[in-house]
Amino acid sequence: MNQMLCELVPHSSKRISDYVAAYPDIIDLSVGAPSFGPPRSFRQALVALTRQTSETAARHDQYAHSRGTPELRAAVAQLYTREQGCVIDPDTQVLITNGAAGALWASVLAVTEPGDEVLLPDPGYMIYPPVVQLLGRRVVRVPTEPASGFRLDVEQVERHLSKRCRLLVVNSPANPTGATCDAEQLRQLCELAAAERVHVIHDEVLDRFSYRTAHRSAVAVDPHGMGIAVNSLSKRFGMTGWRVGWLVADEHVVTQAAKAHAFFALAVGHAVQLAAAAALTDDLADADVTRHALELRHRGTRFLDRLRQVPGLVVPDLPDGGFYAFVDVRPFAHLRALSTGFAASVSEAVAEHLLHERRVAVVPGIAFGAGGEGFVRMSFAGSDERLERAVEQIAAG
Amino acid sequence: MNQMLCELVPHSSKRISDYVAAYPDIIDLSVGAPSFGPPRSFRQALVALTRQTSETAARHDQYAHSRGTPELRAAVAQLYTREQGCVIDPDTQVLITNGAAGALWASVLAVTEPGDEVLLPDPGYMIYPPVVQLLGRRVVRVPTEPASGFRLDVEQVERHLSKRCRLLVVNSPANPTGATCDAEQLRQLCELAAAERVHVIHDEVLDRFSYRTAHRSAVAVDPHGMGIAVNSLSKRFGMTGWRVGWLVADEHVVTQAAKAHAFFALAVGHAVQLAAAAALTDDLADADVTRHALELRHRGTRFLDRLRQVPGLVVPDLPDGGFYAFVDVRPFAHLRALSTGFAASVSEAVAEHLLHERRVAVVPGIAFGAGGEGFVRMSFAGSDERLERAVEQIAAG
Repeated sequence: MNQMLCELVPHSSKRISDYVAAYPDIIDLSVGAPSFGPPRSFRQALVALTRQTSETAARHDQYAHSRGTPELRAAVAQLYTREQGCVIDPDTQVLITNGAAGALWASVLAVTEPGDEVLLPDPGYMIYPPVVQLLGRRVVRVPTEPASGFRLDVEQVERHLSKRCRLLVVNSPANPTGATCDAEQLRQLCELAAAERVHVIHDEVLDRFSYRTAHRSAVAVDPHGMGIAVNSLSKRFGMTGWRVGWLVADEHVVTQAAKAHAFFALAVGHAVQLAAAAALTDDLADADVTRHALELRHRGTRFLDRLRQVPGLVVPDLPDGGFYAFVDVRPFAHLRALSTGFAASVSEAVAEHLLHERRVAVVPGIAFGAGGEGFVRMSFAGSDERLERAVEQIAAG
Repeated sequence: MNQMLCELVPHSSKRISDYVAAYPDIIDLSVGAPSFGPPRSFRQALVALTRQTSETAARHDQYAHSRGTPELRAAVAQLYTREQGCVIDPDTQVLITNGAAGALWASVLAVTEPGDEVLLPDPGYMIYPPVVQLLGRRVVRVPTEPASGFRLDVEQVERHLSKRCRLLVVNSPANPTGATCDAEQLRQLCELAAAERVHVIHDEVLDRFSYRTAHRSAVAVDPHGMGIAVNSLSKRFGMTGWRVGWLVADEHVVTQAAKAHAFFALAVGHAVQLAAAAALTDDLADADVTRHALELRHRGTRFLDRLRQVPGLVVPDLPDGGFYAFVDVRPFAHLRALSTGFAASVSEAVAEHLLHERRVAVVPGIAFGAGGEGFVRMSFAGSDERLERAVEQIAAG
């Protein structure tokens, strides 16, 4: 057995979501799934492809091209032209993957070797460290500070760059903190990285939920071809269950990532890709994304305002982006005299208390790294009613 | 960049299928996609799930359980009870993956460590070696002989087992040779492996296309819990484009494989899994699989008979299973005085000749390992008309 793997702990949101599945009374703020679903154009295209009654296999019943169908790669390239103003060659610069997770995995495999160091933000999205470790690469965490809204600091990144470092992961808008990098910061990070021959993965799955500034992608600001955009339909269209993602990068990266992808996945579902292409080229669906983002922004503002009424919660301003509130719960734990007991940390003690006593599921900040300790992540992607009930239950008792 | 990855050559059937896509006049015998498509129950279930018009996300629009939906895991467990007579716990012994490729990747990650040796049949399915190498494990090839129909020999396996070996991959029915392991051989292999603490992956994607004996799965014959069944809907139902696969194994393997899978894939498409469960529990679809297998068997017999008329081709009897003819083309190359030229080998020279001069795509045997040199793989999964035309074109000139 793989000892490294045996020692990795499944991420705690996984454990929490298993628990939630068993107790339907719990209000689940632990998962970032928006309440809106996939666009009509996606569903209509998939129904049209699937309804055909011939007994013979259609083209979409057979393997898609291992880099992705030409239709979806073209739609992704157009997306980057439309939203980021950059020219992307669909034949050489796009790889379609099983969600952003598949794109992350293929990217890390492509641009690093066992033993290389990978810089990850702390706190940061919880699957980054195990992905890096499982592939035999070394995790180096770059701390970010609550005082700056957990924004990634260029000087801090520079301080943690060593000769063994080959990759920096930037997540903007960030999960769990909602912090963003603006174009100038991104450009500085890319310059810094390129000077050290370090690639930059920009996980931008929350791109359309950027409230402070217009979202900029690393591939649009990086002149050195070291940027790798990792993205998916999951958050944009509220369809985490459909697993369509991609990476966009320089040809030298995509060639290798595509090769790795062909070995661990062969290809992504063919019909689902064709339907995804229909959704990405649908203006109406695009307008709905803008509307949904505005709704989430207002929902977040209302939720944070309500949450501020709860004694002991230190609630930040509306984050730069995303749909998570990253809330300091240390005074809350103190007020409630919550013992950490078997829980290793304050954030876990609070998450346990909220789950079992208040029937509200949140993710303890320590799941995102030592830098997240003392905080919990609450998704405000759900409905207003659910969010209101959640606050009532958290405040009660 | 990952040097190991950079040095890996994309498998040649990939290169051939890219070429075929650009020239529609070519008769493609290089890919093993059956001409029948997914069962009606699959399509109907997916249409029903997708047709709903609510703007709100449905359950299947959001992440499935990372091990797979309970419905599909139950259907897979039932399948092993029905077809193999063994009791499988859907909660602890099944992992749903993106095709068999995802199951293979998760299994190798789970049961081996970097530096471990992995035994692979030679010739064997072409993605095994790069998967093993890319994960930093070491490939040890076990030769098989044309004289025995390339059947895996237990003594040969024993001879290649070292202290560093942790995994044996058995592919039965085998791609490209069609060789199978019967229950007794499988049992012996499992005994031998278990004695050395070696896991056994049984890639059984061609399980329903077994012509000589009833297919037996390693998980059904192995009393030691070291067997790992890797399987998918792709060949069974003619739906390679939908990417639904699984592994079935002892709890200690599935726990770790599921953890790894959650890191590189998060989960498999939710709605597609629900539709897959409908297909796997559909008796009519099951009866059609039996009918399709009989058809392919007859088609294979007719194809091989025709192929035997072509001077220089040494055509085997109908293989034990699968839908590939693995044909010795050395006399053919000699008769036609084919120069290997830039091609590294006779099998490549013949494949190039057939592709460019005869407009028939086949896979050179060397793509499956040194033991496949001198042979080419031809799929007989296509229609009779196409197969007949292919033989005519090969014989011409």
